[in-house]
Amino acid sequence: MKEFTMEKMKEACGVFGIINNDDYDVARFTYYGLYSLQHRGQESAGIAVKNGATILCHKDMGLAHEVFNKVILNQLQGTIAIGHVRYSTTGASEVQNAQPMVLRYRNGNMSLAHNGNLVNASKLRDELEAQGAIFQSTNDTEVIANLISRYRVLNDNIVDTLKNVMDDIRGSYAITMITPKRLVGMRDPLGIRPLCLGKIKNSYAFASESCALDAIGAEFIRDINPGEIVLIDHEGNIESHNTVEKGCRKLCIFEHVYFARPDSIIDGVCSHKARVEAGRILAREYPVKADLVAGTPDGGVDAALGFSRESGIPYGHALIKNRYVGRTFIQPEQTQRDSGVSIKFNPIRSEIEGKRVVLIDDSIVRGTTTRQIVQMLKEDGAKEVHMRISSPPYKYPCFFGIDTSTRKQLVASKNSIDDIRNLIGADSLGYLSLEGLLESVKGDKCGYCTACFDGDYPMEVPFETLKNSCG
Amino acid sequence: MKEFTMEKMKEACGVFGIINNDDYDVARFTYYGLYSLQHRGQESAGIAVKNGATILCHKDMGLAHEVFNKVILNQLQGTIAIGHVRYSTTGASEVQNAQPMVLRYRNGNMSLAHNGNLVNASKLRDELEAQGAIFQSTNDTEVIANLISRYRVLNDNIVDTLKNVMDDIRGSYAITMITPKRLVGMRDPLGIRPLCLGKIKNSYAFASESCALDAIGAEFIRDINPGEIVLIDHEGNIESHNTVEKGCRKLCIFEHVYFARPDSIIDGVCSHKARVEAGRILAREYPVKADLVAGTPDGGVDAALGFSRESGIPYGHALIKNRYVGRTFIQPEQTQRDSGVSIKFNPIRSEIEGKRVVLIDDSIVRGTTTRQIVQMLKEDGAKEVHMRISSPPYKYPCFFGIDTSTRKQLVASKNSIDDIRNLIGADSLGYLSLEGLLESVKGDKCGYCTACFDGDYPMEVPFETLKNSCG
Amino acid sequence: MKEFTMEKMKEACGVFGIINNDDYDVARFTYYGLYSLQHRGQESAGIAVKNGATILCHKDMGLAHEVFNKVILNQLQGTIAIGHVRYSTTGASEVQNAQPMVLRYRNGNMSLAHNGNLVNASKLRDELEAQGAIFQSTNDTEVIANLISRYRVLNDNIVDTLKNVMDDIRGSYAITMITPKRLVGMRDPLGIRPLCLGKIKNSYAFASESCALDAIGAEFIRDINPGEIVLIDHEGNIESHNTVEKGCRKLCIFEHVYFARPDSIIDGVCSHKARVEAGRILAREYPVKADLVAGTPDGGVDAALGFSRESGIPYGHALIKNRYVGRTFIQPEQTQRDSGVSIKFNPIRSEIEGKRVVLIDDSIVRGTTTRQIVQMLKEDGAKEVHMRISSPPYKYPCFFGIDTSTRKQLVASKNSIDDIRNLIGADSLGYLSLEGLLESVKGDKCGYCTACFDGDYPMEVPFETLKNSCG
Amino acid sequence: MKEFTMEKMKEACGVFGIINNDDYDVARFTYYGLYSLQHRGQESAGIAVKNGATILCHKDMGLAHEVFNKVILNQLQGTIAIGHVRYSTTGASEVQNAQPMVLRYRNGNMSLAHNGNLVNASKLRDELEAQGAIFQSTNDTEVIANLISRYRVLNDNIVDTLKNVMDDIRGSYAITMITPKRLVGMRDPLGIRPLCLGKIKNSYAFASESCALDAIGAEFIRDINPGEIVLIDHEGNIESHNTVEKGCRKLCIFEHVYFARPDSIIDGVCSHKARVEAGRILAREYPVKADLVAGTPDGGVDAALGFSRESGIPYGHALIKNRYVGRTFIQPEQTQRDSGVSIKFNPIRSEIEGKRVVLIDDSIVRGTTTRQIVQMLKEDGAKEVHMRISSPPYKYPCFFGIDTSTRKQLVASKNSIDDIRNLIGADSLGYLSLEGLLESVKGDKCGYCTACFDGDYPMEVPFETLKNSCG
Repeated sequence: MKEFTMEKMKEACGVFGIINNDDYDVARFTYYGLYSLQHRGQESAGIAVKNGATILCHKDMGLAHEVFNKVILNQLQGTIAIGHVRYSTTGASEVQNAQPMVLRYRNGNMSLAHNGNLVNASKLRDELEAQGAIFQSTNDTEVIANLISRYRVLNDNIVDTLKNVMDDIRGSYAITMITPKRLVGMRDPLGIRPLCLGKIKNSYAFASESCALDAIGAEFIRDINPGEIVLIDHEGNIESHNTVEKGCRKLCIFEHVYFARPDSIIDGVCSHKARVEAGRILAREYPVKADLVAGTPDGGVDAALGFSRESGIPYGHALIKNRYVGRTFIQPEQTQRDSGVSIKFNPIRSEIEGKRVVLIDDSIVRGTTTRQIVQMLKEDGAKEVHMRISSPPYKYPCFFGIDTSTRKQLVASKNSIDDIRNLIGADSLGYLSLEGLLESVKGDKCGYCTACFDGDYPMEVPFETLKNSCG
Repeated sequence: MKEFTMEKMKEACGVFGIINNDDYDVARFTYYGLYSLQHRGQESAGIAVKNGATILCHKDMGLAHEVFNKVILNQLQGTIAIGHVRYSTTGASEVQNAQPMVLRYRNGNMSLAHNGNLVNASKLRDELEAQGAIFQSTNDTEVIANLISRYRVLNDNIVDTLKNVMDDIRGSYAITMITPKRLVGMRDPLGIRPLCLGKIKNSYAFASESCALDAIGAEFIRDINPGEIVLIDHEGNIESHNTVEKGCRKLCIFEHVYFARPDSIIDGVCSHKARVEAGRILAREYPVKADLVAGTPDGGVDAALGFSRESGIPYGHALIKNRYVGRTFIQPEQTQRDSGVSIKFNPIRSEIEGKRVVLIDDSIVRGTTTRQIVQMLKEDGAKEVHMRISSPPYKYPCFFGIDTSTRKQLVASKNSIDDIRNLIGADSLGYLSLEGLLESVKGDKCGYCTACFDGDYPMEVPFETLKNSCG
Repeated sequence: MKEFTMEKMKEACGVFGIINNDDYDVARFTYYGLYSLQHRGQESAGIAVKNGATILCHKDMGLAHEVFNKVILNQLQGTIAIGHVRYSTTGASEVQNAQPMVLRYRNGNMSLAHNGNLVNASKLRDELEAQGAIFQSTNDTEVIANLISRYRVLNDNIVDTLKNVMDDIRGSYAITMITPKRLVGMRDPLGIRPLCLGKIKNSYAFASESCALDAIGAEFIRDINPGEIVLIDHEGNIESHNTVEKGCRKLCIFEHVYFARPDSIIDGVCSHKARVEAGRILAREYPVKADLVAGTPDGGVDAALGFSRESGIPYGHALIKNRYVGRTFIQPEQTQRDSGVSIKFNPIRSEIEGKRVVLIDDSIVRGTTTRQIVQMLKEDGAKEVHMRISSPPYKYPCFFGIDTSTRKQLVASKNSIDDIRNLIGADSLGYLSLEGLLESVKGDKCGYCTACFDGDYPMEVPFETLKNSCG
Repeated sequence: MKEFTMEKMKEACGVFGIINNDDYDVARFTYYGLYSLQHRGQESAGIAVKNGATILCHKDMGLAHEVFNKVILNQLQGTIAIGHVRYSTTGASEVQNAQPMVLRYRNGNMSLAHNGNLVNASKLRDELEAQGAIFQSTNDTEVIANLISRYRVLNDNIVDTLKNVMDDIRGSYAITMITPKRLVGMRDPLGIRPLCLGKIKNSYAFASESCALDAIGAEFIRDINPGEIVLIDHEGNIESHNTVEKGCRKLCIFEHVYFARPDSIIDGVCSHKARVEAGRILAREYPVKADLVAGTPDGGVDAALGFSRESGIPYGHALIKNRYVGRTFIQPEQTQRDSGVSIKFNPIRSEIEGKRVVLIDDSIVRGTTTRQIVQMLKEDGAKEVHMRISSPPYKYPCFFGIDTSTRKQLVASKNSIDDIRNLIGADSLGYLSLEGLLESVKGDKCGYCTACFDGDYPMEVPFETLKNSCG
């Protein structure tokens, strides 16, 4: 039995936005931006472009390079663009849920791209429906768009409108938006989802991660602050509004544990560096005598480096990961898995044979994959397999943009560490402590949401939402 | 300027074959086999299945998971299957050149899948045309098929037929074939391209690399010998014919340098292990004082491990490689590249800043990518960049299945090491010696074609072929 | 010069709906219904199906047989279905404008399909936007859906809601709708667009034309009355509400002149019969000495029959129409047209050579096609060509669902009959009088909108709308 | 029960060819030519273009407008083009059987498009295989190509080669071909399949039917003679070789009965005129008292005109045919047909109610459709239905390019006229006599193959071929 189901957490989305004050092709830049944010969502991709008073949009299921071709990109001519890659956390996996969303409201045309999850979306939707609003999709973005439209009628400017909307919505959100005149970026009051600002010549870009700024050759300027609204126009004027007092920051700590690309710097912390550091601390917290330290590709390799450096145990490659799988890949059926079909990972026998192996992964969600990998390593000759996880036990469901489904599926929510060790068949198992993890991601500006580890949610989660996830 | 063109060598193909003596779904197994051989060719994929007296075939441009879906695989019912993934080395990139080739000849239906390149294809084609043969594609496989058909008329069995064909064709070939009654695997007299045999229960499979046997849960039995023809029937009878005396083996050494998946074992040597060893020897041949050893993903990472282990310089990750690119990805145009659009690689600044970095790659073909990477590392703060290549200078074109185009494009064919160092902007540059490389891949059964490094071609290459490649 | 541009009027849409009280496959029946209504719109097709509390929907650009396949139809399982074929009259030709529209509102899920055009859509949209509504498409259906949702909040039942909506919207509409419990059909107060009701066993269906009821084997029951709302539930209860006093009917007379399939019976009148009768009256109004009467396929053939029967001049086939053209057909460019490329029509020389031909068409919009046909007939030997049109000169733009663009393009709006005769190169030209046309379509229940002929619009058209069309 | 299966004869193919001596776009012209020959084959379409020494080709399953788009046509640049539309008579319905076939042979590149059927293909294939030839498809064209290639080796010119090939192959064929220097058209020695030559400025075109010449604005020059080979070069030289003595002509009479477009003139006879004449004679042979004469669309309408003119019974439209069906249309299943789903035809009740109807069709193959139509007419009120067929009973299978499957399926092969009348439920039934049919198609140059009516095959048909068709 060597088959693997995909049991990693599914990130919500990645967003991008650019306003051209030079002679750039905004759609093309957004395409490259999305390509570098592709790890944040592989289900659908979309780009909306402001072309005069019109907004052109193309979006479909698939990776950026599947959704877009030259003909389509060339049609997306304009001066402001936003883009979105998505893995659904809320809303069904259907094309009508793809973003950006484009809509007409009282003041003209608008387009939104949203990464995050509202915990009170259901309530807001009910209230809006009670006022006669209709919904054509199941995603939160349509809720936000309706609120913007309603508040825009009551306000004479977009900033007050967005402030009103932020008063209403609760949850995580990093949003890029095209308004009739400007590119807007905004981040939720706790800064749960990341969003940063870059500059290239006289043009400006927002992106979920700094790696997307690097991709287009833009210079990183700064992170958007929690609760901040930034509006940029074609004269290059940047207007910033902070809706919250400085203080409490609650960046999703899983961005550094797993989601973010290692080369991204979020709120001043480089993910790669944080992961290496987590590995170091893990080596101190759970030392072991062994011959080889390896990471499961790709999640564990950075922490494995740190573990190796701290422990002095040689770093190596224990597993090959096949990278050619796509959305339409046909998974083996049970009969094939029983025959030993092994699709995603294969051990390198010569590297592990007869050795005591420390295998590092960033997290364990359901445990199935980990068990299979441990078994494969042993079948291929590893003498011992010591599992080390570079984050604490993942016990509590996330309501802010990570799809871990219900609590029932989280192996750590109902099993002791020793039970888990038994289940995965490892000779030993060690999880990084929460203190250790917080130490690894320490930065000047940082505070973190650690709810998935300690259940300490940064805001009240409605009972209905909780109920569905704890079943 | 951070853009990268794809300048790696293009591998010819991967082949697979399976004969079912149990209750396996041969098309599905072939699909998984091709998926694990996908690194050998991403241009087209195909599967042919023997269904009674008929051969069903589906092939198209694209990756295996793009070409096949459940409906198609379910239609490919049968008892023997062969499969092929291709990157064209000869023949245009068109669907009519996709393999396997299916054809009717005197004795019924036949199907062939071929990895390799015939150096006398042009001459054979002319001779066949002079006898009235017609050709509907430009690939060598059609030449082989015509020869088989012609010799089959003159012989009363397939083995003599294939021997006759092997007498005529010159070059590299690893072939899987469906005949009216059997699955056949054959390998050229020098064993230039790899082919191995595996077993699962009572069924047998051929594959270009052992990783494809692992993928379907089959047990590796042995490599096909140079010049060997192996025929397997539904009773499980294995018939083997050796057409050459034991002795001279000329496995393409680049299989271990670059092509093969690290977890594959070819002619007794594990590619990962060979690469680590090459890195070790390289560290001895070209030592340097530095703070970090890193490999360019993915080609240089194994040798970087070896270099680090030998030198004691810490191993690390200097570059992120974006893995989501597909066939239809829209490359940046010059204007975007001038703006700094960087698509494929991005350095991890925190890892390299202020450090003396040893960067390992498996080879340099044209040098453009290497130059760009060195520059990126320096721009992101590397104090020194010392380039180390885990193979000798690539000077001579390959005529046996690697597409390096003409000699003119090989930077090492007309520049001194120091010129190349200058060109790529590295602080130092060291290539592994041929002796070092041969040491790293040493095995009991091994002999290697090293023509790309020393011009010592394992057989005479026709003048016409040479001419085209040295222009 | 034999090339033809498509200059026929573009019909708005066709709608269908069915509620299953037997064991029918509602999606399949809707597919066949749409197929028989395909002449009403070839741009997009869609089907929505009520499946429990959910509504499943599939729609895309293309003909019904292009948009749907077995896999898709099989997924559309449910108990109520509505369908739509569309040629855009308002809203751009984009997939987000395809119907049916599916939406969630306060009372659950709803789906709408609409044929017609609202003359006050722009004003309603502004009013709704002023209340904070957002719009994601440019079609009128979204306006209607917003109004339904708003009024549903204010009413405790759907009937009052729809009555309120009908009070607000002005224009033409034939609508099929899925509500949380029922299938609904409704027709505008003047009955401008047709809608009829049929029955098959215990199940009921609405369709734009009776030919769609014939297609599924349903029995025609009756036309929906102008201003009537019909609601049908799964017990087979039919609830009818008339919002207008009996009296004024304003069925679009062009339904009988051109749009409707000849075998359809609308408000008691068979289109084929009406067209034959129009031809008879035309023969009396504009008699001519000739050898052959022929119709331009397909619009003129029925009236040609009547003209022949009345005049005694033999009926024949003068032109072949190529029927294989599709949406993606590549029209000849000017250079090819100059070379004589003739794609759509070709005369039958043997039938017309040396003859005086009466050619009947249903209407002339811009005149270009007519001119080309007349010229072709003459080039192929017709001695005289007498053009007879089975409707009056088309002078005024339609605001109720026919896309004739602006008045400027209507040849009859600015030219005398004799000028038009000259322009098209006919030896004589006669248009049926309005009296004659009204005589041909006379029925018990009928009254007609004849605005395109006499400018007598059945309701006030907002200045803004008028302005755009008369430019 | 109103459903209809498609039971019409399936025509083999249509061919086209053009050589440009002006500045025409040969691919575009071929596209228009194929579009006007689309009625001869709707399964696949293809165009091959000579571009210097290369031949570019695009072909796929589908109608011409589905297979080609602007991008593809623009890539097909060159000086000579041939095209093909196909409905398979031999060879499976697969893309590898699509034509034109492109191949390399001793003298360069060649391309062929073929309409017809060889009766000795199987024997020729065996002989070629015995010489070692391989076949990659199942169509006759590959047999012809192999013969050309073999004979070209033995001859020093193409004309002698083609003569040799014509000596070997037996059956029907109209072929267009691109040779290294010329466009070639050739027709089998009996002229069973049509082929004609046209001219436009200094360029020349071959086409299966003259309507394709009309489509591109070319002037009809003449029919290719039976057994004639015509070669045209870029200087406008036309070389003609006749391989048979003048005399025996055996044009497939079904071209005029059913296949050819009515506006086509084949061997001097206009199909429309012949059909009208057939209707006249039919009216004399089988007179009846009735109120209306109608044809089944489209096959019976021309003969219905003739019947009406001769009998004085008014001509009318009894049935509507839905024209929007495509290859992927989902046919109703039995349950839907039992519910009365009626897809293709619908009667016009007002035209037939209470009337005695003479219904004309061109032929009856299996009788199922005819029975369904007769029943529909009666259900919709026709008092009597008198069936008249404008050709004799279709009794014998065709081996020359018409797919009527086996003799068993031909209703007339095993039933008396009266039995058939009973089976289809008509009040009377009359078939045109063979003498009458021959009278209707009489021309100066004409002789006909009438084997489907009288079993008098124009050449010996191999026993094996006969056996398969008479089972």
